[in-house]
Amino acid sequence: MQLRRLSIIGVGLLGGSIGLAARSALKSVKITGYGHRPQTLRRAREIGAIDEECADLTQAVNEADLTILCTPVGLFSEMLAKMSQGLKPGAIVTDVGSTKESVVREADKLLPKNIYFVGSHPMAGSEKRGVEFARADLFQNALCILTPTRTTDPDALKTVQDLWQALGMRLHQMSPADHDLALAQVSHLPHAMAAALVSMQSPQAIELAGKGFLDTTRIASGDGTLWRDIFHDNAPNMRKALAQLRAALDCFESLLDPAKASELRDWLDAQAQVRQRLLAQKFRELTPD
Amino acid sequence: MQLRRLSIIGVGLLGGSIGLAARSALKSVKITGYGHRPQTLRRAREIGAIDEECADLTQAVNEADLTILCTPVGLFSEMLAKMSQGLKPGAIVTDVGSTKESVVREADKLLPKNIYFVGSHPMAGSEKRGVEFARADLFQNALCILTPTRTTDPDALKTVQDLWQALGMRLHQMSPADHDLALAQVSHLPHAMAAALVSMQSPQAIELAGKGFLDTTRIASGDGTLWRDIFHDNAPNMRKALAQLRAALDCFESLLDPAKASELRDWLDAQAQVRQRLLAQKFRELTPD
Repeated sequence: MQLRRLSIIGVGLLGGSIGLAARSALKSVKITGYGHRPQTLRRAREIGAIDEECADLTQAVNEADLTILCTPVGLFSEMLAKMSQGLKPGAIVTDVGSTKESVVREADKLLPKNIYFVGSHPMAGSEKRGVEFARADLFQNALCILTPTRTTDPDALKTVQDLWQALGMRLHQMSPADHDLALAQVSHLPHAMAAALVSMQSPQAIELAGKGFLDTTRIASGDGTLWRDIFHDNAPNMRKALAQLRAALDCFESLLDPAKASELRDWLDAQAQVRQRLLAQKFRELTPD
Repeated sequence: MQLRRLSIIGVGLLGGSIGLAARSALKSVKITGYGHRPQTLRRAREIGAIDEECADLTQAVNEADLTILCTPVGLFSEMLAKMSQGLKPGAIVTDVGSTKESVVREADKLLPKNIYFVGSHPMAGSEKRGVEFARADLFQNALCILTPTRTTDPDALKTVQDLWQALGMRLHQMSPADHDLALAQVSHLPHAMAAALVSMQSPQAIELAGKGFLDTTRIASGDGTLWRDIFHDNAPNMRKALAQLRAALDCFESLLDPAKASELRDWLDAQAQVRQRLLAQKFRELTPD
């Protein structure tokens, strides 16, 4: 599909960056931005992330070929229900949520049959928040996970794939359930762990925090509401990931036994090697040529 | 004391950086380096981290006014025992170990009464290893923790303080026991957690690792032998810190209950705020003017 009109629902860091990147990659597309704070909408227009502001959700989507949900996950159901009254037949909807099972299920339930939903998770962002941190290159070389199901319209999938690729993203496809399970391990749990690590520090200890502690806890500076939504939405997988982490910590603790000196060294070296391989792979992905 | 001769035992990242920084800050001092690999010693001399190489530990320290132990913690006892036969009366010994109770205790036991030991923990370093990563500015504005006890000689303490300050470090003083407890929380546990986090990832999950995961696990790339020594040396405090982490994770898990939505948000925001305050404080320390 030739995209003529794009609507961005929620113009924060991600929504604003999509606007900036789409404007630069897809010259002829007209971008409408919806948000509940007039100040944010105005700022998004001023920096060129959107062409027009709209404070009414139904109206904001009614000419859109493609609408991208960029609000926190906790607002998705409400947004989908309202949008369904404004979307034109054949319109496509996608999102940028960090969890996929619930949004795919809700979209199925709340959107009319002639509206095509495709779940997306562009893995880009920052612990920073707000349109003032939006950047046209935020998605460049980053990974976008698409979670089509057997009911997903192939043309709609193609349109959404084309959009993310136009924004510079690499694509990956998996089921919503697999996505949520894997993300609980590799993304959501690290966030919870970083927050737990901050929470348990004594005043004497935190005063001595160095670069290692700051790096390890960087993601704990994320927005509480946004992450609360993600954790609650992905609670069953979070519980599984927490159980796996506890098992890994138990394993580590058992290796504190003086008799296990070489096992502990081997275990630590093994994790260091896994991370080094990962780093090398990420580096290749980010510098493709 | 006017330092004329400095001996560095172990010329890796830290030992090499001390040599480079001392040479630049204390022009007239002569630096001897000891290590078990001739290649490393030669490289240290070539980059100007030491003035002379010495493959014999007793000989390496026998003219030293101040000797700095820079080997992994696990070798300290062996090094102290050997050194005690070469050190001249009145010589001062310090170290760069990440744990302090055991080295202070061992030094007390193994060094003659006319040798003065002061425990140091310069909090600088990197997940990188080896003299090839040594930098004269590694210690600039970083924190050095000194752990004198009631038997520590005040003049020796002053000499060691002066050295670290000459290298650009800020100083902090605490007991060996308090040091090891606080460091278990703020430094050693994060390392164990990062390794545990890497170890529990499924192949599907780790493939999706983003910048957050890489930052959170950066310290897991550290050297296994070095960290094994630290963990075993500080095992009782590690067990305490692990228990505290488990309690924090339990607290987090209890907040996954849908009825606890606002408590979870508040808890996450509280940790984010603690980290932001810490970041602001660190930034002030690193940019003093």
